Amino acid sequence: MRTAYYISDGTAITAEIFGHALLTLFEVKFNHVTIPFVETVEQAEQVNKKISESFQDKDHRPLVFYTIVNPEVRKVISQSVGINYNFLDQFVAPLEKVLGIPAKPEKHRTHSIHEKTYDIRIDAVNYALANDDGSNLKDYHEADIILVGVSRSGKTPTSLYLALQYGIKAANYPFTEDDMGDILRLPAVLKQFKNKLFGLTIQAERLHQIRSERRANSHYASLRQCRMELRVVENLYRKERIPFLNSTHFSIEEISAKILAETGLERKNY
Amino acid sequence: MRTAYYISDGTAITAEIFGHALLTLFEVKFNHVTIPFVETVEQAEQVNKKISESFQDKDHRPLVFYTIVNPEVRKVISQSVGINYNFLDQFVAPLEKVLGIPAKPEKHRTHSIHEKTYDIRIDAVNYALANDDGSNLKDYHEADIILVGVSRSGKTPTSLYLALQYGIKAANYPFTEDDMGDILRLPAVLKQFKNKLFGLTIQAERLHQIRSERRANSHYASLRQCRMELRVVENLYRKERIPFLNSTHFSIEEISAKILAETGLERKNY
Repeated sequence: MRTAYYISDGTAITAEIFGHALLTLFEVKFNHVTIPFVETVEQAEQVNKKISESFQDKDHRPLVFYTIVNPEVRKVISQSVGINYNFLDQFVAPLEKVLGIPAKPEKHRTHSIHEKTYDIRIDAVNYALANDDGSNLKDYHEADIILVGVSRSGKTPTSLYLALQYGIKAANYPFTEDDMGDILRLPAVLKQFKNKLFGLTIQAERLHQIRSERRANSHYASLRQCRMELRVVENLYRKERIPFLNSTHFSIEEISAKILAETGLERKNY
Repeated sequence: MRTAYYISDGTAITAEIFGHALLTLFEVKFNHVTIPFVETVEQAEQVNKKISESFQDKDHRPLVFYTIVNPEVRKVISQSVGINYNFLDQFVAPLEKVLGIPAKPEKHRTHSIHEKTYDIRIDAVNYALANDDGSNLKDYHEADIILVGVSRSGKTPTSLYLALQYGIKAANYPFTEDDMGDILRLPAVLKQFKNKLFGLTIQAERLHQIRSERRANSHYASLRQCRMELRVVENLYRKERIPFLNSTHFSIEEISAKILAETGLERKNY
């Protein structure tokens, strides 16, 4: 199997994400190896040695994807025996021309604690944890968004992703069996923050499957119960004009991107 | 201010992360606009209209960063009035040559629910939440790693990031004042999983600052108490040969990448 290396003097997250997006265009399996924090010429030479050694066992030259700011370190990696892709460089010269200024590379510029929005993201994660699953009803005035939905419709991981990725303070509130009558009424605590509400729903069969993994053969997991709860909350969303999304076929990344696009919610982090 | 657009027929996360890494090389402020899920020619034409309109107000042509799989949609965006950067295409032809096969673009290939590791990541997030802050001591046999450290040293957000990004099941256990004697002993529940432990520590002044935001002027937040707790746990790490990291100057992305590099822990998601 061919090896794909992701190398950086930082976390290597940019090289990984971009390299991954490229490789998924091809129907080939790769052995993936990330080597972050390659910050000195000596470390870079060690990396090249490792790439050379791995190559001797194999038919195929390894791919080497890298984003390295330090020019001396970069030069060493560019001489590895692999097929080298310097991701950022291809775009730097044309951008310098367009912007009319030279690039000023700084080490650890992305994904570091020095990014201005870092503290905002961590605060948002703490907020999401403290306001998960209706566990705290008194700080909704601080929320940027309040996700609502039945148990296991995707509220918690979406709240965490919105916080971690975008610095958005997302609370989430579960509609439980106690809330269900024939017609669910919007709980008073949510009514005053109605403009912050966003509903999630999910296919009954999928919900039944997810709940069964937690509590097999329970009333809670039964298809009948799932159908009833979903019917009630979807009616509520429509009656109260709460925007909502069916999460069945979407990842938390997709759900989050769709929520941002639909609500126009401002992200704190780019 | 010049606008940077991030456009995709998926979440646009790849375009955002790569574009962001590029733009941080330049000392210029940008107005950032993400437009995800541009899936039809009609939607693409609407996007171009929006780009044209925003350009009329400004001196500078907008930058348009895009990763679009559908060739017809891509063609429309490539004709926008912005300065267009098709991120993936530049690398596809050389990769096709190296790999000896043509690219087979599929829609929503990354960051979607169809990725094989998606369920693993969500399971890991649920595990991290259920095993946060020593709240559950009986499922440590399932953990890939158990982060230990004093309160507010970065354990919880790091556990969540390891889960969300890498699909790693990370529990975390806080050393509290009750655990501290003159010499902290490793709690029995951790002893049997000693090979899974990874310690976090932090500068006393920074810990004092973080705790003071939570409980100002408390015994818990006092510099004296922070110093004592950190001294005790660092001694424990050394005595028990638990690998550890000082998180003071690192983001959770950096801490996570360093933990993976140092422990050789296998990631479930690439």
